[in-house]
Amino acid sequence: VAARERKGPGRRPAGSGTRETILETARDCFAELGYDRTTLRGIATRAGVDVALVSHYFGGKQQLFAEAAVLPFDPSALVPRLLDGPRDGIGRRLMDFVMDILDDPEARARMTALIRAAAAEDAAAEQVRRRITSQVLMPLASGLGADRPELRAALTGSQIVGLVMARHVVGLHALAGTDRAVLTDAVAPVVQHYLTGDLTRDLDAAR
Amino acid sequence: VAARERKGPGRRPAGSGTRETILETARDCFAELGYDRTTLRGIATRAGVDVALVSHYFGGKQQLFAEAAVLPFDPSALVPRLLDGPRDGIGRRLMDFVMDILDDPEARARMTALIRAAAAEDAAAEQVRRRITSQVLMPLASGLGADRPELRAALTGSQIVGLVMARHVVGLHALAGTDRAVLTDAVAPVVQHYLTGDLTRDLDAAR
Repeated sequence: VAARERKGPGRRPAGSGTRETILETARDCFAELGYDRTTLRGIATRAGVDVALVSHYFGGKQQLFAEAAVLPFDPSALVPRLLDGPRDGIGRRLMDFVMDILDDPEARARMTALIRAAAAEDAAAEQVRRRITSQVLMPLASGLGADRPELRAALTGSQIVGLVMARHVVGLHALAGTDRAVLTDAVAPVVQHYLTGDLTRDLDAAR
Repeated sequence: VAARERKGPGRRPAGSGTRETILETARDCFAELGYDRTTLRGIATRAGVDVALVSHYFGGKQQLFAEAAVLPFDPSALVPRLLDGPRDGIGRRLMDFVMDILDDPEARARMTALIRAAAAEDAAAEQVRRRITSQVLMPLASGLGADRPELRAALTGSQIVGLVMARHVVGLHALAGTDRAVLTDAVAPVVQHYLTGDLTRDLDAAR
């Protein structure tokens, strides 16, 4: 899974490409500094434009963040792709997708920036709710046809957000250093359980 | 599970209790504002002391945070208590404990403050690694005697941190509004799987 846009080598300091330049710079700043430490002035300086131009195009920091926090995938294409396959393989397909994101440095930077920001700022939390839960996990849970799709989407989101937090933000060595296949084996059944399993069932009873 | 300390109604503006007053004020500020927006000056103003006194007692913001981020439980007492009971009930006992924390407003505020801070700041991430993973989840996983205790502790931590994030920081309605018993039923088997299950096993194969 590649990021949808890459930063070109030649930035355009003014003209029709300025808005996109500011947006790309904002993405870099939010990813590197986090939401709180990123300022419109810092973005403007780094993009080589006047801060008034940043405000002109985007209003305030929250609006700029909302536009900059583009997910490294297209939800409308992702959901049908994930649904295409055996129902009891959805946990593994979703985890393979998540690990693809986390293996790609730019895509991972966007995901971790969004999750870091969501911890600090309501506007970013709203982006996570809307873009991850509402646009991906809810349609996925609904498409699988199980009961309580909203709860299933939220539980799935909690495990995925928690995995990104623990592995790439808190930096737990046991997760950062563990082979992708081992992590996928451990977490995919959990995601499957949340999306299609009996949520009242004691998994251990079957052991 | 009650918080270990409660803020008394009468604050002491100076003297031997000043250090504790600053610490309590710092806890309030970190919980309300998050790590980044909390300043030594803000804490000093709110505690009614000179900022130099805050530096005198605690050095910088990172050190103050490390002291203020007291967990709302005592790890050395918690681990034996959780281990006391049937091995196949550890998922439920741990989830009951987590839900107790999240049901207590002050304890929840401390947990969410720590997790918010961990998303923004390496010093806080280190507190999460040390106080939740190393002092609670690692001894728990080791005490249960399964293979790969470090990986199991980290996976368990990812789900618990993710649940707190999704429910109380990102604010997913489906988690915030769902009955405690339903959430416990859904997540306890996952925690059990991470702590004692076969991490290479496809849970769905047994269905």
